[in-house]
Amino acid sequence: MATKKMILDLDTGVDDALALALAVEDPRIDLIGIVSSYGNTLVETAGQNSLNLLHLLGADDVPVYLGESHSSTTTHFDVMPISMAIHGDNGVGNIELPQAPRKIESISGVQFLIDAAHQYGDDLIYLPTGPLTNLAAAIKQDPEVAQLIGQTTLMGGALTVPGNVTPFTEANIHQDPEAADFVFTHQKNLTMVGLDVTLRTLLTKNHTQAWRALDTLAGRTYADVMDYYINAYDTLDIDHRGAALHDPLAVAVAIDPDYVTTINLNTRVTYDKQSGDYGRTIGDSARLLDATTTKIAVNVDTERFVRDFQEFMLDILSKTA
Amino acid sequence: MATKKMILDLDTGVDDALALALAVEDPRIDLIGIVSSYGNTLVETAGQNSLNLLHLLGADDVPVYLGESHSSTTTHFDVMPISMAIHGDNGVGNIELPQAPRKIESISGVQFLIDAAHQYGDDLIYLPTGPLTNLAAAIKQDPEVAQLIGQTTLMGGALTVPGNVTPFTEANIHQDPEAADFVFTHQKNLTMVGLDVTLRTLLTKNHTQAWRALDTLAGRTYADVMDYYINAYDTLDIDHRGAALHDPLAVAVAIDPDYVTTINLNTRVTYDKQSGDYGRTIGDSARLLDATTTKIAVNVDTERFVRDFQEFMLDILSKTA
Repeated sequence: MATKKMILDLDTGVDDALALALAVEDPRIDLIGIVSSYGNTLVETAGQNSLNLLHLLGADDVPVYLGESHSSTTTHFDVMPISMAIHGDNGVGNIELPQAPRKIESISGVQFLIDAAHQYGDDLIYLPTGPLTNLAAAIKQDPEVAQLIGQTTLMGGALTVPGNVTPFTEANIHQDPEAADFVFTHQKNLTMVGLDVTLRTLLTKNHTQAWRALDTLAGRTYADVMDYYINAYDTLDIDHRGAALHDPLAVAVAIDPDYVTTINLNTRVTYDKQSGDYGRTIGDSARLLDATTTKIAVNVDTERFVRDFQEFMLDILSKTA
Repeated sequence: MATKKMILDLDTGVDDALALALAVEDPRIDLIGIVSSYGNTLVETAGQNSLNLLHLLGADDVPVYLGESHSSTTTHFDVMPISMAIHGDNGVGNIELPQAPRKIESISGVQFLIDAAHQYGDDLIYLPTGPLTNLAAAIKQDPEVAQLIGQTTLMGGALTVPGNVTPFTEANIHQDPEAADFVFTHQKNLTMVGLDVTLRTLLTKNHTQAWRALDTLAGRTYADVMDYYINAYDTLDIDHRGAALHDPLAVAVAIDPDYVTTINLNTRVTYDKQSGDYGRTIGDSARLLDATTTKIAVNVDTERFVRDFQEFMLDILSKTA
């Protein structure tokens, strides 16, 4: 199988850290760069977290770029208190990561994406796990990008289940519904991996205990970071059984679509603040009879995914520092 | 293949009239009775419409029972103006149907359903095309009903597309969300055929013209009734391409599930009037990881269904008066 190029667009973030590890480890993809986003943390914090995690995993060769620092309709972004409660004040469970020697790249994340879309085309997978601000900005700057990127698999949205910010909206989409609607109505070959499936993939402290038992720096650090997140899920009454593997599931689906069942649906994102359903991902009434390349994941093989995920994590955490 | 017993629960209604014709004609099912509901019309009007349509189709052997006359949380029901605009003041496009000789049965529709559930069990298909008030009442009166009925296939709800009363709620569910939630959380082997699929099955005047050309009383009458509905879809800006085959699609799916793609989802109906999403059919967060026998239709083989539907209609409308 030909190796695909992948760009992660991360607001790093605990589950982003897991997505990053999966993308570094999986031999079926070549992680060519990380675009940083605001969301779980500020964009600069997310970028530095990504650099430090890559360093921890022995992947200093992967460049990190800064994307947009706020939504397409605002001029400023503050991290929401609930995000800090779930991901820690520093985005990675208040664990201090070893500082990476590498620095953030000087060209912008949006420019990097545009250049990569032209260079790799069908071989490129773009994978946003936060707001869709960077992808929307790239398409607005260069409309060809929407047709050039081979596959876009995003973590976000909620179609068949309630949202996690309001009953209608999921956190990533809620950060910038206008950008999300623009992406859903422009980007070809889009797959949405939302709460419909990610809430069914739970990691527990049994899993993180196995990481810690590897007795590597990476194993201990990832276990500490993830335990913060599992504890937050418990104390915030999100789920007492474990914590959702939101972002890594999106990476796994981008590599092996068979982890999920999808439906084809031309989808929109509502962004009328008066309508009461701000930030809802929902079928587009005007395009119900039209063909589509948009897929929404609605069911997941939980057992196979969690088992494979744990195997990948044990592999990478054991072979690194 | 063994013939299944079917009970239709109709608020007759133009598309109910089509569902009734399909159920009368299809040799794979034995239509053992019709329970009448309020909704598109008053319950008494719906009952008489059903009797008259059965008579028109030469099916005077099918008994009609009256169900509940209003929702489980009200004491009275008035037909909504929009319902009259779509279905006509009399429910069947303001066309005067020949009067049936048969009368409404004296036992209640709810009692008839309870008795049939015990008598036929797994061989019984219950098919509501209006509010779920009758089914909820039957289960409340005799909880075994929820386990006894072999298959319940309902027309109603909207999971992946906006509603047609508000962005969140579909008309049948909106009549009695409390009853609908009770049914969704109690009834086994439930299949929802909602706007997700029915809005993709459109009938046009090309189809009704072929009914009229049969030059039978049934053909002319059904064409006149359906043309009223197609005109209403056009003038009310619901759809200018044709009118949705809501209720007959549910009958077709009950007989041949392959017309649609379904997803398994434990589903609830919201009914908090303060929440802003009153009457929404949505995945039940508390039961996302639980097994389920509830299926939601999310895609439909439009071409095959509309073609088969038209063939059935031409058959029954040509062989009757």
